[in-house]
Amino acid sequence: MGRKRGFDEATVLDVVREQFWTAGFVGTSTYDLMEATGLGKGSIYQAFGNKDALYARVFSDYCQDLVTQARQQLQGGPQAVLPSPMARLEHYLVSLADAFAAESPRRGCFLSKVTADRAGEDEKVAQTARRAFGDLAGALAAAICDAQDAGEVADHVDPTALGYLLLSVIRGIDSMAKAGVGEETLLRTARSALVLIPRADSPHMQG
Amino acid sequence: MGRKRGFDEATVLDVVREQFWTAGFVGTSTYDLMEATGLGKGSIYQAFGNKDALYARVFSDYCQDLVTQARQQLQGGPQAVLPSPMARLEHYLVSLADAFAAESPRRGCFLSKVTADRAGEDEKVAQTARRAFGDLAGALAAAICDAQDAGEVADHVDPTALGYLLLSVIRGIDSMAKAGVGEETLLRTARSALVLIPRADSPHMQG
Repeated sequence: MGRKRGFDEATVLDVVREQFWTAGFVGTSTYDLMEATGLGKGSIYQAFGNKDALYARVFSDYCQDLVTQARQQLQGGPQAVLPSPMARLEHYLVSLADAFAAESPRRGCFLSKVTADRAGEDEKVAQTARRAFGDLAGALAAAICDAQDAGEVADHVDPTALGYLLLSVIRGIDSMAKAGVGEETLLRTARSALVLIPRADSPHMQG
Repeated sequence: MGRKRGFDEATVLDVVREQFWTAGFVGTSTYDLMEATGLGKGSIYQAFGNKDALYARVFSDYCQDLVTQARQQLQGGPQAVLPSPMARLEHYLVSLADAFAAESPRRGCFLSKVTADRAGEDEKVAQTARRAFGDLAGALAAAICDAQDAGEVADHVDPTALGYLLLSVIRGIDSMAKAGVGEETLLRTARSALVLIPRADSPHMQG
């Protein structure tokens, strides 16, 4: 009570996430978590609750990071590395496909893993996954809007629909990567999604 | 030896697939398989080999069915219900999104489940998944070719790239459905993929 914890929470959560990522929820026992973190059962339960709560926690943290990264990469503004919204979209999709392809061993994205593993059994997990999908689709839709404002994408395009479409393409590339589909195919799939986005006929007047 | 088996193989394999689909590879013990099938350990091992072999078998059978169904729905010819290749593509995508959305409880596609569950750990499983992805993308690419021949889709479109793109969209819709993303969003995502396919400027001459 009030005593300083004898461990670094962030480090423990990293270790726990890696454990669940590799072995899944069912494949991870409380004993596995004790071994991986070097903590006693009592310390784990007192700090984080039971296995379900711990799984929900590391998944939620992961999703938040994923959404923050997506927003940072897709958003314009003074911090943006790439000035054009379409260039940012292309960089985002292609670098994800690249990352999925380069992974060894192939674990795939933790969001996909957890969704396939537990979303059907644990409504709290499903809710976190839904919010992550919604937020990611929203970040993509915002980038499409920016591209329309910049005169890069046709005005008739529905940013929300296209946001979900690009999200589903990314999820699909992740699944194919997990099965070991080749890098060339993954990159071509990402690029072909971008090619299909209807461009504006002529650039808008800037300013 | 040479004795007639006292069980129906197809029924047993159905039961085994359902078990793995619900509980996953790690979450299914040999005892679970005995309980589910009503067979003794010896009978199971003699007929199908160990748990890995049984998992690989039901997954391979499932993928073959999935590919056969895709080909039947997408292929033209005398048996085709819908005469237009694009109509068949639309029916295929929308009916898949519909099926994913309607599922209760939400289990998602067994191909996605197994890929997330075991493709990183079992190269035989990864190989089967890769072949299924390749075959499904091929069936979609063939439908795009048919649509080009029928003057529905622009000739500059690369059927192979678009085949993989539509496949990744389907995989993504499945993942979103598993998380409980609403039916309307799933259907809109499927339709928005179809809308983006560049149409031929004018219908080709038939005949």
